Amino acid sequence: MIYLDNSATTQPLPEVLDSYHKVSMNYFGNPSSVHHLGSEAERLLGKARKQASSVFQVDEKEVIFTSGGTEGNNMAIKGTAFMHQTRGKHLITSSVEHPSVLEAFRALESLGFEVSYLDVNNEGRVNPNDVEQAIRKDTILVSLMSVNNELGTIQPIQEVGKLLKNYPTTLFHVDHVQGLGKIPIAIKDFGIDMCTVSGHKIHGLKGTGALVVQNHVSLFPLLHGGGQERRYRSGTENLPGVTAFVKALRMIEEEREISGADLLQLKESLQKQLQNIPGVYVNTPAHSAPHIVNFSVPGFKPEVLIHSLGEREVYISTKSACSSKDSNVSAVLQACRLDQEKTTSALRVSMSYLTTHEEINTFIETLHGAIQELQPTMGRSL
Amino acid sequence: MIYLDNSATTQPLPEVLDSYHKVSMNYFGNPSSVHHLGSEAERLLGKARKQASSVFQVDEKEVIFTSGGTEGNNMAIKGTAFMHQTRGKHLITSSVEHPSVLEAFRALESLGFEVSYLDVNNEGRVNPNDVEQAIRKDTILVSLMSVNNELGTIQPIQEVGKLLKNYPTTLFHVDHVQGLGKIPIAIKDFGIDMCTVSGHKIHGLKGTGALVVQNHVSLFPLLHGGGQERRYRSGTENLPGVTAFVKALRMIEEEREISGADLLQLKESLQKQLQNIPGVYVNTPAHSAPHIVNFSVPGFKPEVLIHSLGEREVYISTKSACSSKDSNVSAVLQACRLDQEKTTSALRVSMSYLTTHEEINTFIETLHGAIQELQPTMGRSL
Ligand SMILES: Cc1ncc(COP(=O)(O)O)c(C=O)c1O
Ligand SMILES: Cc1ncc(COP(=O)(O)O)c(C=O)c1O
Repeated sequence: MIYLDNSATTQPLPEVLDSYHKVSMNYFGNPSSVHHLGSEAERLLGKARKQASSVFQVDEKEVIFTSGGTEGNNMAIKGTAFMHQTRGKHLITSSVEHPSVLEAFRALESLGFEVSYLDVNNEGRVNPNDVEQAIRKDTILVSLMSVNNELGTIQPIQEVGKLLKNYPTTLFHVDHVQGLGKIPIAIKDFGIDMCTVSGHKIHGLKGTGALVVQNHVSLFPLLHGGGQERRYRSGTENLPGVTAFVKALRMIEEEREISGADLLQLKESLQKQLQNIPGVYVNTPAHSAPHIVNFSVPGFKPEVLIHSLGEREVYISTKSACSSKDSNVSAVLQACRLDQEKTTSALRVSMSYLTTHEEINTFIETLHGAIQELQPTMGRSL
Repeated sequence: MIYLDNSATTQPLPEVLDSYHKVSMNYFGNPSSVHHLGSEAERLLGKARKQASSVFQVDEKEVIFTSGGTEGNNMAIKGTAFMHQTRGKHLITSSVEHPSVLEAFRALESLGFEVSYLDVNNEGRVNPNDVEQAIRKDTILVSLMSVNNELGTIQPIQEVGKLLKNYPTTLFHVDHVQGLGKIPIAIKDFGIDMCTVSGHKIHGLKGTGALVVQNHVSLFPLLHGGGQERRYRSGTENLPGVTAFVKALRMIEEEREISGADLLQLKESLQKQLQNIPGVYVNTPAHSAPHIVNFSVPGFKPEVLIHSLGEREVYISTKSACSSKDSNVSAVLQACRLDQEKTTSALRVSMSYLTTHEEINTFIETLHGAIQELQPTMGRSL
């Protein structure tokens, strides 16, 4: 099996599962219980939080453990909106965000908030000047992703963070789900107020993640209750999930330092090889994350190629998993103003640090073979 | 170790952890991915949903998997409020609900909703007549728990459900987190529109649970995004968590049928034995859930007794884990109009189907011993 859909989800590492299992067995107490089992659990939770905070270089209290990226994004966006609506009801994001951001904003529009969706250039990149232009007196939030999940485009987070320092009443949220472990971001230095990450994209477990919330930020919680996680995320803490997440987090950051350059090289080689296949157009820009390559094969329905590759146990995807069953058109590629031929025939390869040169070579051969094999059939319908 | 804090959380069963582990390893695909790994995961998710729906005797589509009880409660309560606020902004609950219900309502009050908190009798029970009296033209929701987490009191869910059938624009939500696997409720027959359950209270895993939402109900989602779980709960599905939850669900329901009567007997014997200890007052009423016994030892600080029992590896708790670190006063016991001596000295024993007669006997002996041992010290401070 050659698994090249790591932006949809990753295979959990044995070490991560192991940590989950051990904590489930040996630390099952509720961290809120006053007896020994409770305090042992609380201690372990504190240790995990400390480790996570040191990876993110933030205060311990600034790490809020969540059930994943969608929760982190909704919590940051709706939490800001509900908390600060008396100060303003205008929000800014881009037109190429993940559905967990875009749909959260659409939901807020239905509740009377006003949202500016910034255009991107033909590489899917937001212009920091456009962010500044869109800011109004009543703008309470700017939300941008660090790495686009379909294209791999890197957004100018540092630049936007820098300019937002001049607008202290506008909070800055970054969806770092695709960027984590792939590109470095310095939360405090970049002026990021809230940062979403997810466990299952970094060989961690589904149902785990975190939202980093700087101490000076106040949010209206999505989940009220027992007051866990600095009152921002009530509910009995998923301690095994938390420790497994932190394990995955530390491992991916180590991997990024050791193998980041190799992965980038692998991606660049993949881009070149794809460009050499007749009829294939690479959509991912040059300056992009080290794990995602998006390409179009005009005239071919994406699911036909996916099916053909799947028969050889090579697994890739159409745009993002979240919207992959709805239609063939990629809204992200549309926003980059690619022509319809390309927006309806896009495929995505997403690698991980486990991906090898051999796997990429086999993928290229298999894709090439599939295109040649299917050409006559597809040709007729062109 | 004698673990008698099962209402705070339970030890996961090996079968449950096993199922989690297998699915994590072998079905790590994203159910939304179009390739083979995705469809395998989707198939397994469908199977789990079918199994859960058959336990709850509802439609498959009516099972929404969540990250736990707090999420289910917030989703039902806020989801109803935001969705139906144009029809009315009045909500009804009781004064003895879990913080994940009470705090969700308080949050809604801060957003302009009006909430009636019903009184309870001295056994912690709501009077169905009071529910009916509180209903107004603009009442959009009644939310009640099936079993109280501190006292074990069973609420008249069936009666309330029946009378609410005359008020078709008022939805009925039941927090069944403590009742699941302990007392039977028939969601459809009782007229329950939404029902919250949680995995880690039934020997399942933390971070898992479900909200049953009848097909005719529409909710404003807390988590917007990719549209998973009937659009009510977006986010990459936690498939290992889901299958583990469903495993625990099926096992506890089987256990309830086989051992429900035994557990009830064990509880009644525990109540009697406690009543025989001088200075101990049992607060849990006669007609109550089979796993919870609340009692007060006036003059003794709960944490002192817990500590003393803990030294003998007997683990019990003060009221609910969620609020156990805040103060000694139990708001639930206050609502039952117990005197201060009792509301500030309450302890809770919560059993599971794994609890044995021997454990209960040892607990009683240990408690008796601790009270006698501490009596002179405590006496001075009385
Ligand atoms: C950029 C981005 N943000 C958010 C998410 C949502 O994360 P999760 O699947 O953990 O809910 C994803 C993945 O689906 C993503 O790629
Ligand atoms: C009655 C009741 N409702 C809700 C909850 C919250 O469930 P969870 O811990 O899964 O968030 C609990 C447990 O803490 C409870 O006892």
